[in-house]
Parts: sequence; C-alpha cells; structure tokens
Amino acid sequence: SQTNNQGYSNRGMSLEADINVTNTYYLETDKAVIHKKPTPVQIVNVKYPKRSAAVITEAYFKQASTTDYNGIYRNHYIDFEAKETKNKTLFPLSNIHEHQIKHMQSIIKHGGISFFIIRFSSYNETYLFPGENLFPYWYEMLEDGRKSIPYEKITQDGKLIPFQYQVRVDYLSIVDTLYF
Amino acid sequence: SQTNNQGYSNRGMSLEADINVTNTYYLETDKAVIHKKPTPVQIVNVKYPKRSAAVITEAYFKQASTTDYNGIYRNHYIDFEAKETKNKTLFPLSNIHEHQIKHMQSIIKHGGISFFIIRFSSYNETYLFPGENLFPYWYEMLEDGRKSIPYEKITQDGKLIPFQYQVRVDYLSIVDTLYF
Ligand SMILES: [Mg+2]
Ligand SMILES: [Mg+2]
Repeated sequence: SQTNNQGYSNRGMSLEADINVTNTYYLETDKAVIHKKPTPVQIVNVKYPKRSAAVITEAYFKQASTTDYNGIYRNHYIDFEAKETKNKTLFPLSNIHEHQIKHMQSIIKHGGISFFIIRFSSYNETYLFPGENLFPYWYEMLEDGRKSIPYEKITQDGKLIPFQYQVRVDYLSIVDTLYF
Repeated sequence: SQTNNQGYSNRGMSLEADINVTNTYYLETDKAVIHKKPTPVQIVNVKYPKRSAAVITEAYFKQASTTDYNGIYRNHYIDFEAKETKNKTLFPLSNIHEHQIKHMQSIIKHGGISFFIIRFSSYNETYLFPGENLFPYWYEMLEDGRKSIPYEKITQDGKLIPFQYQVRVDYLSIVDTLYF
C-alpha cells in the first residue's frame, strides 16, 4: 500500500525545485554529488557594456541531448530524468525523447544507474521508475501507438519516494534498496 | 621525451572543440558517454512571439559550480576540467576556482575519477593532470601566494595525451593507464 504525502505538504513546489533542495542536502551532508545540468541555450548575441557584466540579448532554448541530472553516489554513476504529470490514470510518454532513451540505455550498458523520477502531482506521489522498466513501454509505443504507462504499473513496478522536509525527494533511499 | 604534435596540426581549433570531437567519437563508437555541461545562464527575460520559437532577450553568464565535463567510462564516473594556456613556462592557477577544487575532491572521495586536461597552446601539447597532483599546488598557493605550476612539473607528473585526427584528445587512453 502506498502512502499519500499530501498531509505533509509540499504542494506548490515543483518536482525540479524539490529535487534541487534534496541534492543540496545530499551535497552538504557529503552523501552524494549530484547536480542538475544547466538548461542548454544557443547564444546568438552578447553585448559587453562598459563597467558591467556581459548581457546575452538573443538566445534560444536548445533541445537537451541527455537527461536532467547526473552525478556520483557510492562509487556509481547516477543519471536520471524528472517528469511531472497532472494526469490521474497514466503517465504520458509524449514528453520523453528518443535520444533520452538512447542515452539512458547507453548509461546502463556502461555500468551506470539510470531511472526516471515521476511525480503524479494530483496525488502528490513521486516514484522512482527504473529505466529498464520504462524501455519496454517506449518500444511498445513505437510499434502499436500506445503512448502512456498506466498509473497502476508505475505504482507496481516503481517505488514510492518518501517525502521529508529537508530531503523532499529522498530518491537515494530507493536507489539503496533497488541497486545495492 | 615528449612528442610535439605541431606537425600533425590541429592549430586554430580550441581545446574545448577538440574534446567535443573526441567525445562524439567515443559516443559513436560506444566507448564512453561523456558530455560537456551546458554553459550556465541566468535567464531574466523571454519573449514568446506568435508562430515562432521563444526568444531569450535578457540573460547573464553564471559562474559554473562544477567542472566542464562529466560522464561514464568502464563503470566509472569521470569528471574533468579543461584549461588552455599560452604561457610557455608555467600553468597559472588563476582561472581555477575554489569550488571546482572542492567539487573534484568530493568526486574522488565518492569513488570517481577527476582530472584536468591542460593544453600548452604554444607547444601544442595537451596533458592529463590528475586532480590529486594539482590539489597540493592549490593549497600551497593559498599559503604562500605562489600562483602556478611549473611546465616541467606538468610534463613530469602529468601524461601527454596523444593526438589523432578523429580522436583529437584521446584522454581515455591515458585514463586506461593511470586509473585501471
Ligand atoms: Mg525533466
Ligand atoms: Mg574549461
């Protein structure tokens, strides 16, 4: 049975913000070194005003070629993608990209740990869902056009991540049980 | 004795560009998954024109909190910083930042591999210099104000990285000999 964290509320804070707070805690307690990768930006124009900082005056968002986060934990390379959905019955695969799947498969092949952190914001539940469990759904989608994973499958084949005030998404506690 | 690569020329191409070409080769040959981290940018203003892509109209460069590159190779987390100097007799420590040193020490403590790739562009020589070898110079600098590493020390305690057309900075060949 899964616990709903809505009582101990983190509503209003995005998954990414929660993970960033968690990573800062991990870093400060010397548990792991895991960072958000900066948003990739194509810089087109920069102005260099006298006596002040360079200003980027024209730039565009680029498609990320990998995942949101990576780093090291207990000697292992860790790499993951965070996704949030308001959907109550399924996780849509539409905002995952082919090159992210390829990247994650590659990481696992080279000995790393790669997974998704998926939040169902309507339930305020956040799951660690291993890459290995998601890939079959991705290839099923490419074949028959089904574009999502049922909520029940995420709850069964993923692991609910505990919420605490300082460790808002304590995903490493789940990594401990799944990968070590 | 060290080989000078100037004959087999890569003059005019920056160290970063050479490393990016090398990483693409590693990725395509499935040898390693190592990427340049995007330049961190503080986005202040974005315009959303109708029927075209969002344009960032005001943004600023942020200080990178970690290093230039990271990824996975032979099950190991790899993390490094690339630096180029025109100086012929020494490598100045002035463009390394305290938080980068702390980051690299942390990576090594958690079981990762962390080093500098240092190019002396006057000689067109590129060295892999392990983090462990650089840290003592850093702390010496903090104590007595000496702000550089002599060129000879880099050539002695570092390893010259071979140059090839497709693998312009084949640093993993050095990683193989130093860390495995
Ligand atoms: Mg994401
Ligand atoms: Mg650099």
